[in-house]
Amino acid sequence: MTARRGPRSGDGDTRQEILDAARAAFAELGYDRTTVRGVASAAGVDPAMIHHYFGTKQGLFTASVAMPVALDQALPDAVGVDPSKAGERVARLFFRVWEEPEPRAALLGQLRHSFVTGEPPPIAGFITGAVLGRVAERMTGRDRELRAELVASHLLGVALLRYIVRMEPIASADPETLVEMIGPRIQTYLT
Amino acid sequence: MTARRGPRSGDGDTRQEILDAARAAFAELGYDRTTVRGVASAAGVDPAMIHHYFGTKQGLFTASVAMPVALDQALPDAVGVDPSKAGERVARLFFRVWEEPEPRAALLGQLRHSFVTGEPPPIAGFITGAVLGRVAERMTGRDRELRAELVASHLLGVALLRYIVRMEPIASADPETLVEMIGPRIQTYLT
Repeated sequence: MTARRGPRSGDGDTRQEILDAARAAFAELGYDRTTVRGVASAAGVDPAMIHHYFGTKQGLFTASVAMPVALDQALPDAVGVDPSKAGERVARLFFRVWEEPEPRAALLGQLRHSFVTGEPPPIAGFITGAVLGRVAERMTGRDRELRAELVASHLLGVALLRYIVRMEPIASADPETLVEMIGPRIQTYLT
Repeated sequence: MTARRGPRSGDGDTRQEILDAARAAFAELGYDRTTVRGVASAAGVDPAMIHHYFGTKQGLFTASVAMPVALDQALPDAVGVDPSKAGERVARLFFRVWEEPEPRAALLGQLRHSFVTGEPPPIAGFITGAVLGRVAERMTGRDRELRAELVASHLLGVALLRYIVRMEPIASADPETLVEMIGPRIQTYLT
């Protein structure tokens, strides 16, 4: 490794080095206490470079866990745009992320780390800070935050049984079958 | 420790020694491959002693995780006796177990071990082998096993967010409030 002297101009590896620094920062500090400035400093780049590649801290996090979709946009949209289909769309987004090997490995790694250290995983900070609050804003009625978290709890439990415990028949069930079963139950929390 | 020469008669510590041997066996072998005979041998007692104290392997497991209720009886009963109240009763049983510090610590320890080793926790074998199959028998309609597991997934996810991630407001919510919210959703899986 070459020594770094302050901010550098972009090169082919810059994006990857930012991602490596971001993953380390999210793992060490959690989502809330990680800053774009801190990641920039650790990666030896100007913060503007991070904004150029990833937009906001949310975008940086999404990329650092190889998320195939920006959940901080997609989940609130799934709830707000057409509430009658919200449950199904949320469930489908969930499987779109978890059925991909790369984000699944990243998310399982975070959960494992959380279990070992007793610290909440960075994804929890991202989900509460950047996703659930906005989801709740699109909902109506009482106890919106709590209902949004109950949706998250159900999906997290499905991930555990399907991808970690590998309990049958849930582990081998077709994702679309699960979407059809889980969607209507999630729907009753959301609307 | 005194050397053990074959089966012994009961004494004040026998029950505890059986429990210690059972915990070690369940952790090492998982629920399915643990036998009453094996635990008896490890504890230096006659298998009849285990049956005397704990009844079946299910009862031994229940005691080994300090479960305040025999879930292999109580959960199928909660579903079968009065189906119209099944969801609420299942949710209430869940909190009766998890709100107690001793079983909560035992269950969290199992989940942690599972995350670190990649092996399913013994409780998963107990739940699939001794609980969910019987719950599904009391249900009607299609996909009963899958629906029973989706109930389990929701409750497991609630446990994770409430007791491990400690996400607010779910972590501080009154258990009875959660029972009232989760019960009806579970109900739609069960009936």
